[in-house]
Formats: sequence, C-alpha cells, structure tokens
Amino acid sequence: MNALYSPSVAAMYPKGFDTAVEVGPGLTGGLCGRFRPGHFRGVTTVVAKLLNAVRPDEAFFGRKDAQQAVVIRRMALDLDFMVRITVVPTVREKDGLAMSSRNACLSPAERRSAPVIRRALLAGRKLALSGRGRAGTGAVKAAVRRVLAGEPAVRVQYLDLVDADMLTPLAKSKGKVLLAVAAYMGRTRLIDNVVFRIRRGR
Amino acid sequence: MNALYSPSVAAMYPKGFDTAVEVGPGLTGGLCGRFRPGHFRGVTTVVAKLLNAVRPDEAFFGRKDAQQAVVIRRMALDLDFMVRITVVPTVREKDGLAMSSRNACLSPAERRSAPVIRRALLAGRKLALSGRGRAGTGAVKAAVRRVLAGEPAVRVQYLDLVDADMLTPLAKSKGKVLLAVAAYMGRTRLIDNVVFRIRRGR
Repeated sequence: MNALYSPSVAAMYPKGFDTAVEVGPGLTGGLCGRFRPGHFRGVTTVVAKLLNAVRPDEAFFGRKDAQQAVVIRRMALDLDFMVRITVVPTVREKDGLAMSSRNACLSPAERRSAPVIRRALLAGRKLALSGRGRAGTGAVKAAVRRVLAGEPAVRVQYLDLVDADMLTPLAKSKGKVLLAVAAYMGRTRLIDNVVFRIRRGR
Repeated sequence: MNALYSPSVAAMYPKGFDTAVEVGPGLTGGLCGRFRPGHFRGVTTVVAKLLNAVRPDEAFFGRKDAQQAVVIRRMALDLDFMVRITVVPTVREKDGLAMSSRNACLSPAERRSAPVIRRALLAGRKLALSGRGRAGTGAVKAAVRRVLAGEPAVRVQYLDLVDADMLTPLAKSKGKVLLAVAAYMGRTRLIDNVVFRIRRGR
C-alpha cells in the first residue's frame, strides 16, 4: 500500500509554533549551509516532525542532497529516533543531469548546458582515482572547474571535497570522500555530487 | 508493570553528539531561563530523546517545575510527538516545602527556614484572590516578599507573576496565573510556585 502524508503549512506550523531541532555547525556550517543560513535548521525540524507523525521503520533520502542526508542521519541518531535512514542514489536524466524540481526553472539553453555539472564532477573523480589517489584536493577541484568553465552560463557557488561522513575538509583526498558542487544556471541554483572511496597508494 | 529507563551519560551523549532541540525565548527566556542560559535547551533535547526511546502514551512532569512543563508541552506539540503531557501536583513535606533532591543539600537551619517559600506564595495567592482580583501584580509580589523577608537566610533570585500558559508578564493579575519564585537558601537554589485562576470583578 502506498500513502502520501501531505499536511498543510498551517497544520505543520500553527500559531504559536516555537520549536527548532538543530544540528551543530560542524555538519551544517559548510557546503550548502554556508550559503543558506537556517536552511538545515528548517530541514531537521520538519523531518523530526515527519518522523514523529509517521513513525516509519525506514526513511529514504536522496544522495543529491548529500549534506542533508548526513545532517538527518546525525539528528535521527542523536535524538534516538527508531528509524533507519537510507540514502538512495541520485536519479538522473539521460544526459546525466540530476533530477530536481528546479530543473523546470531552467531555460532551454540553460537546460542544455546543465549536464556540464555532472561531467565536471566525473572528471574530478577520475583524476582523484587516478595514480592511487595522489592528486591533491587542489588539483581535483581545478579539474572540475576546468570542465565547468566550458559552459559560461554556469556560475559556481561552491566546489568542495570533504570527508563524506564528517563533511570536514580534506588535506589530501583519501577514504570516502564527497565531491560536491553548487552552481547557478542563470537564476536557478543546482547542486550535485559524487561520493567515492580512495585507497592511498603505498 | 513498572520499568526504569536509566541509560548512562555516555549512552545518551556519545562522541559526536551534536543535536539540540530548542523552544524559543518567549517561553524559555524568562523565569528560570533568565538565570540558567541553555538549561531548557538541555531539557528539551533530553526529553525529546526520552520520548523517542520510550514512546510513551503519557508522560508526567511535576508542577514544581512549572516553566519546564510549559516548555515541554510546547515542544511535544510542535514536534508532533504522539504523547499526552500531564502535569502532576507538587508533592510536599508536611511543613509545605516542595520535595526536591536539592532539599538534602540544606543545613538543618536552612531546612527549618525553607517552608517560608511556600508560606510566602500562599500569602501572595491570598491577596491576589481577595477583593475580586483587584490587587495589582506589584502588591501581590510585595506581599510575597514581605513574608520571605521574615527569614533572612532566604535570598530571592526572582519572583514573578505571569500568565500560566504563555509565561508572559501580567499587567494586572487575571485569568490563570503562575506565581513563581526561585530563592537561594545558602548555596542551595530552590524553586516553587502556585497556579491559580483569578476572575476579575465587574
């Protein structure tokens, strides 16, 4: 059986509503959080409400919102929610663009340019995985930027290579890493990422 | 059947713990919150954890911690916890002193003086209820202070007359009100309160 829980805004945030659930800046201060103050506070608050209202055994979140998934996992663990948080792979258009409701905001020209984000991330991953992970984070980011620069319509907001679980910056790329980008195509902000594991050469 | 849930501190706050549940300053900024910054943030966080770990149908909180009960009720409502929050009357010693683990910290002399807190609150309530509630909040507080002044060992931290549900200051005492006091007996901080309803005279 499928069910959709779709409460109104007024039902979720009635008059007098005054509670917030917050994960600390270690996980929420970087990446998207740097440019969207308060965003993850809203996310964790509404997801806490959702988990209480639904009491699911398992909740699924998309890999595209990688930071969101890490933050929600932290929140669910810390507050003893009895739920398994599962991160599912990003669903993509045929040309590689990550599916998002925001894609509908793109002009036809922007839509044609948008897959460059995915191509750039794959180029970064390729470099990071080559030569037994000897490429530094600077070189990996430069490789991503080079590809993105091929589409002048793209304006990068951030490009980061961090530990995939802790979201901490990496001095050198190793272990399970998250290579994430946020970029504007015109007035539309898109995000995407790749997560991969680097074994350091001996 | 009775059960006691008694986790260790390490189990409640393991390494990496980084989430807080917070109710806004409208309810948490006054009364005890004014003197204990961060206290209610800790309370709502640990109670949210408790509610998730136990999933009770009903949870009971003492009236002595009146602000705590209001804050927890707000949190449980806002975050859609499926629980009934019930506030139970304060249990008292025979001489009127509200039971508290802190009473064990009182010296014998302080213990003998401590019931003055209850007597002072009852004097305040008596004045507030007299004359169809025409006594102003200033007069009610003065009546409480007069009784407390009879015990030099008592040092008042705050004395407030607020709306019992909203915890907002009252210009004039009316409706359901909370008359609350925090006072030091030596180095021990004690709190107590009375909640009562005033019908304004016509």
